[in-house]
Amino acid sequence: MRSFMDQDFMLQTETAKSLYHKYAEHLPIIDYHSHLSAKEIAEDRQYNNLTEAWLDNDPYKWRLMRTAGIEEKYITGKNTDPYERFLKFAEVLPRAAGNPVYHWSHLELKRFFGENGLLAPETAQKIWDNCNEQLKGPGFSMRGVLTQAGVEVLCTTNDPTEDLRWHKKLSEDVDCSLQVLPTMRLDYVLRIEHPQWCNYIQHELAVAAGAEDVATMQDVREILKKRINYFEKCGCRAADIVLDNMYYATAEEYELDDIVGRTLGERGNPDRHQAEQFKTAVLMFMAKECAKRGWVMQVRFSALRSVNSRMADKLGIEAGCDGMGDHAFAEVLAGLLNDLNNRCILPRMIIYSLNPADQAVIGSILGAFQESIENQEGEGIRGRLQQGTACWFNDAKRGLERQLITVSSLSVLGEDIGMLADARNPFSLSRHEYYRRILCNFIGNMVENGEYLADSGRLGQMVRDICYANALRYFGFRI
Amino acid sequence: MRSFMDQDFMLQTETAKSLYHKYAEHLPIIDYHSHLSAKEIAEDRQYNNLTEAWLDNDPYKWRLMRTAGIEEKYITGKNTDPYERFLKFAEVLPRAAGNPVYHWSHLELKRFFGENGLLAPETAQKIWDNCNEQLKGPGFSMRGVLTQAGVEVLCTTNDPTEDLRWHKKLSEDVDCSLQVLPTMRLDYVLRIEHPQWCNYIQHELAVAAGAEDVATMQDVREILKKRINYFEKCGCRAADIVLDNMYYATAEEYELDDIVGRTLGERGNPDRHQAEQFKTAVLMFMAKECAKRGWVMQVRFSALRSVNSRMADKLGIEAGCDGMGDHAFAEVLAGLLNDLNNRCILPRMIIYSLNPADQAVIGSILGAFQESIENQEGEGIRGRLQQGTACWFNDAKRGLERQLITVSSLSVLGEDIGMLADARNPFSLSRHEYYRRILCNFIGNMVENGEYLADSGRLGQMVRDICYANALRYFGFRI
Amino acid sequence: MRSFMDQDFMLQTETAKSLYHKYAEHLPIIDYHSHLSAKEIAEDRQYNNLTEAWLDNDPYKWRLMRTAGIEEKYITGKNTDPYERFLKFAEVLPRAAGNPVYHWSHLELKRFFGENGLLAPETAQKIWDNCNEQLKGPGFSMRGVLTQAGVEVLCTTNDPTEDLRWHKKLSEDVDCSLQVLPTMRLDYVLRIEHPQWCNYIQHELAVAAGAEDVATMQDVREILKKRINYFEKCGCRAADIVLDNMYYATAEEYELDDIVGRTLGERGNPDRHQAEQFKTAVLMFMAKECAKRGWVMQVRFSALRSVNSRMADKLGIEAGCDGMGDHAFAEVLAGLLNDLNNRCILPRMIIYSLNPADQAVIGSILGAFQESIENQEGEGIRGRLQQGTACWFNDAKRGLERQLITVSSLSVLGEDIGMLADARNPFSLSRHEYYRRILCNFIGNMVENGEYLADSGRLGQMVRDICYANALRYFGFRI
Repeated sequence: MRSFMDQDFMLQTETAKSLYHKYAEHLPIIDYHSHLSAKEIAEDRQYNNLTEAWLDNDPYKWRLMRTAGIEEKYITGKNTDPYERFLKFAEVLPRAAGNPVYHWSHLELKRFFGENGLLAPETAQKIWDNCNEQLKGPGFSMRGVLTQAGVEVLCTTNDPTEDLRWHKKLSEDVDCSLQVLPTMRLDYVLRIEHPQWCNYIQHELAVAAGAEDVATMQDVREILKKRINYFEKCGCRAADIVLDNMYYATAEEYELDDIVGRTLGERGNPDRHQAEQFKTAVLMFMAKECAKRGWVMQVRFSALRSVNSRMADKLGIEAGCDGMGDHAFAEVLAGLLNDLNNRCILPRMIIYSLNPADQAVIGSILGAFQESIENQEGEGIRGRLQQGTACWFNDAKRGLERQLITVSSLSVLGEDIGMLADARNPFSLSRHEYYRRILCNFIGNMVENGEYLADSGRLGQMVRDICYANALRYFGFRI
Repeated sequence: MRSFMDQDFMLQTETAKSLYHKYAEHLPIIDYHSHLSAKEIAEDRQYNNLTEAWLDNDPYKWRLMRTAGIEEKYITGKNTDPYERFLKFAEVLPRAAGNPVYHWSHLELKRFFGENGLLAPETAQKIWDNCNEQLKGPGFSMRGVLTQAGVEVLCTTNDPTEDLRWHKKLSEDVDCSLQVLPTMRLDYVLRIEHPQWCNYIQHELAVAAGAEDVATMQDVREILKKRINYFEKCGCRAADIVLDNMYYATAEEYELDDIVGRTLGERGNPDRHQAEQFKTAVLMFMAKECAKRGWVMQVRFSALRSVNSRMADKLGIEAGCDGMGDHAFAEVLAGLLNDLNNRCILPRMIIYSLNPADQAVIGSILGAFQESIENQEGEGIRGRLQQGTACWFNDAKRGLERQLITVSSLSVLGEDIGMLADARNPFSLSRHEYYRRILCNFIGNMVENGEYLADSGRLGQMVRDICYANALRYFGFRI
Repeated sequence: MRSFMDQDFMLQTETAKSLYHKYAEHLPIIDYHSHLSAKEIAEDRQYNNLTEAWLDNDPYKWRLMRTAGIEEKYITGKNTDPYERFLKFAEVLPRAAGNPVYHWSHLELKRFFGENGLLAPETAQKIWDNCNEQLKGPGFSMRGVLTQAGVEVLCTTNDPTEDLRWHKKLSEDVDCSLQVLPTMRLDYVLRIEHPQWCNYIQHELAVAAGAEDVATMQDVREILKKRINYFEKCGCRAADIVLDNMYYATAEEYELDDIVGRTLGERGNPDRHQAEQFKTAVLMFMAKECAKRGWVMQVRFSALRSVNSRMADKLGIEAGCDGMGDHAFAEVLAGLLNDLNNRCILPRMIIYSLNPADQAVIGSILGAFQESIENQEGEGIRGRLQQGTACWFNDAKRGLERQLITVSSLSVLGEDIGMLADARNPFSLSRHEYYRRILCNFIGNMVENGEYLADSGRLGQMVRDICYANALRYFGFRI
């Protein structure tokens, strides 16, 4: 029997151990998608206790606790004693065998706090006291933890209206070796069916862009372009779009003007098809801008947000009440990519679906558009279209393995850009370690089974590429 | 090489063996879904031979035999010599490597009859003679076998019109330690599009409820409520609903009255949408009643019943000619649960899909509605929404493992309510053994790989919970 | 560690090794689906170099190279130096760990050329020189390679308009022990929405059938029937149909006449529904003809052809720019099979979906129509409805294993008809070796785990059946 999450956690073969410890373990981290706050990094926030770090902001843990029948006051209750909340979490965790939260939590305790045992009711007080003591130290500030984790580049998620002042501050801070770059997230721009959309466009986005008036689709594009230019100046290299379903509903410009004009003029709401037409137009505009600038366009779909409306009303959209969708999307995705390709505006794209049943479909369609001819840079882009890594509902061990199986079966594994931590606190960056161990084990198994041959230099190169170098090159980060 | 289905069948590690033999093996069985007949249990039916026990009533075995090209007269032919039929089955079985019927059949031979070898044409006569001899003994009556298997509670499947006289008889029988409880199955109530529906409602259900007349939706609810009350008195703790697709089509009461009234008055048939509206209304009513009484509402969908209409016409709806469906259901399921949740009538629910591709979607959506606040009992319900176990087309080893992977990845494995045998004969209760072995192996692998840490007491508790105690508590059975 | 792709490649247990080496390895090959050219076989084409054999005609390899950012001129460029193209492929291949092309390429190098090492830039020149030298030898002609591979029967893919002269020539060639039989592929007949359809029907198909005029649906059937008769005389035993989605849209004969008549008369194009009605009518006609003749009807769906239209325009429909679809099909497939079954014209069918998420659905529905009564031959057809093997996007190790899991879980593994090579060059026939190794490993694991018991004679029989004898019997080939 292997000991619990020891140095060779997830590494079942000698090759896996060697790949991990020799190549993967000490590579810096390029984390191209996170929900960390640039402000908190700039101010170098310090957590007062584990409940602040772990429970105040983590829908994964909330869902586990709710499933175990824990009362909500222990889960999200701001007025509940922090240790009581921690203790409730410690009651649930040992029952969550196989859940990624089980692994992540113990990995974080081990890596950052030197706590190697099980978190359970009988150990909760000791772990609580020990960790909270350590949290006071300088190595446990926001930047301290990110530095401990080896982060070199970290991309936050930002609305186009944001002024990015904290990103600027960080880039000017000579003491901060870490690059913190914005990603433009277009959720609010896209949701034209939402009652707050007009207000958002006219009084937030237009204001941020210094625009007088917004009346047409082209106006929307113009103000977005101004914000894209601004984000680019601030180091942004990517856009991020989350959709319930994939969209590809084309429209004539006059139709788009009508949809935008009527909605902004409050002369009527778009129907479902019109909303899709608008979203498609924004997608295509963003694709063009991304292609032009060498940005990466990330699209996540099959995300049913806030399906539990009562909970979302109480706790907001990050309450842990999302689900995955299951709409057919193959023809739509193929249609969109084909249109972009025909217009020569197909950018680097990462396509994620929350639904694991979609992976092979995505992989098969992306393979049809991997094309090096006629791109803007005059040469081939390696791995231009990427099957997004296994995140959100797919980030358990089996989900990560499944993504590796799909990518290796349908594409070129050595061109994969690897993991993102999707972090809400800096300790979550250790998910890269989790991924790297699973990746090394996956490759190690192929080697040990005689299914893959490579000298150790080549193997090391592949591990380094997937864990680090591919993402660096693909996004065009400069270090 | 491991010997064939020996004491450590499916148990690949020492931890797995220890978990199974120390904790799981001797636990009583709570079987919350079966097709056994309360009458046959009450009368303590004795089978005359293995063909009666195995082939007269088992669509799983029929499908295998048909696939192997066996003539129908050997499969369902009542006038064919029983041994000839058994011999044909024995010809096919050794070719069905990997099929659950292969494992179940040999497990039953081994556990109940002490037959340890392969069932094949050359052994068929010996096994036939030996088993038939044993079938005459008292340990091989219906209740004898259920007692041998360790069954403590067994839920049958019953139409609301049933008088449950055999359940009552059993509950009054001091010699019967086994609890046999009804489950209300609503197939006939729901199928408003069926030509026999009016007759069923007016001349069977209404009569059973002692109602004079049925004209409105509320009338349907009232007579159902009477039957629910009656079932509750007879120990029922659950409702069971099988759907081709998930439904959530809301309607105003006057629309429902119109649909029900016109159909019952034979003034027109509901169209597809109206049928869905009616079904949604029944679902919501049942949810409310279940929530109020602490009953469990089981919903099975993606079930295409009797797709081979010629075979179903000849042999009835249990002919083995069902398939699984593949409609998108995520938004519908989310919509239904959200509506129930907003009305505070979300009961304990078990959601099953026949289609394995649906599992992650179900798991992700259920997780959004696991909510302990404002439930009727003033405290959290552990594991209120359950991802149904791998039954019907999913009950092979890989299907059971897949369900464990999904539940452990997306939810809290320790809150799972475990297996149901879906039995059509009492020998099938050994499917609980099959499940328990696979479960112990699954947990054992995590422990041996250093992916899960728990003292043996805690491991034993988890195994006991999943195999036995969770279901007992969840359904509120009293023993 | 196992050595790279050695004699026990993919064979993880002693049972697997024994099954493969004792039974599977030396069995002849029945390859019931390939894209090899009867003309090239008849002329016994010789390749000049590996680039001709491997890169001129293989969309699998093209997709890998494009994904790695290789310029198109090295991929499909006829004017590029063949060795330069080969070298580019050698650069990409070592990065494609886990891709079937990685295994296939090395298997071909090993089996046919005695090259055991890694193909990589540093070994490319040596391998190139060695293989090209060998390619000049007589054992490396088209028929030489097929003979080396052990092919006994090979089915090509042919449009009904083809005169099959090369098939005839081959059948009359006393030096050719290999049977090369046509398969009727109906792509062009079905695509009524295509601008070239009228021309194809009237000036190619009708001409081939010696028909004067085509005006009605019945005319289409008549000319098809003539071609079916002709193909049957030339040894054809199967039809092959590729669909984006499954279709089952019934129509009255006058509607079909209207659709066909208007389209042929260029008085209007069919809408989507009408196109589906026409396709359904052709499917049903073909099913009837196949049933009557004991032919096998192969249907492949979820194939989105040429989704990258720019690439398809440049390079044709075999450019490697297909994807898989994800439409719901369960009810449609069930409806079609039920209709065929009710009319007693359900033939032997092999149902393939490109989308792996469809497998369990297909398996469950096929199981409902496995019925031995009232077939045309008076006795049961073993395994009449087959779940197609894992081809196209599913032919990686995991895809093949997944298909074996589905078939064994839902059907009778011993009735499976095994592998097809889908070859575009004769070296690809070694994919049968790849499959056989994976199959023996799959069965071997069950035996070693104590999950399957069989004496070695019975195990050998099962392996022989799946790898060879089942296909021979199922298609009715005569050797």
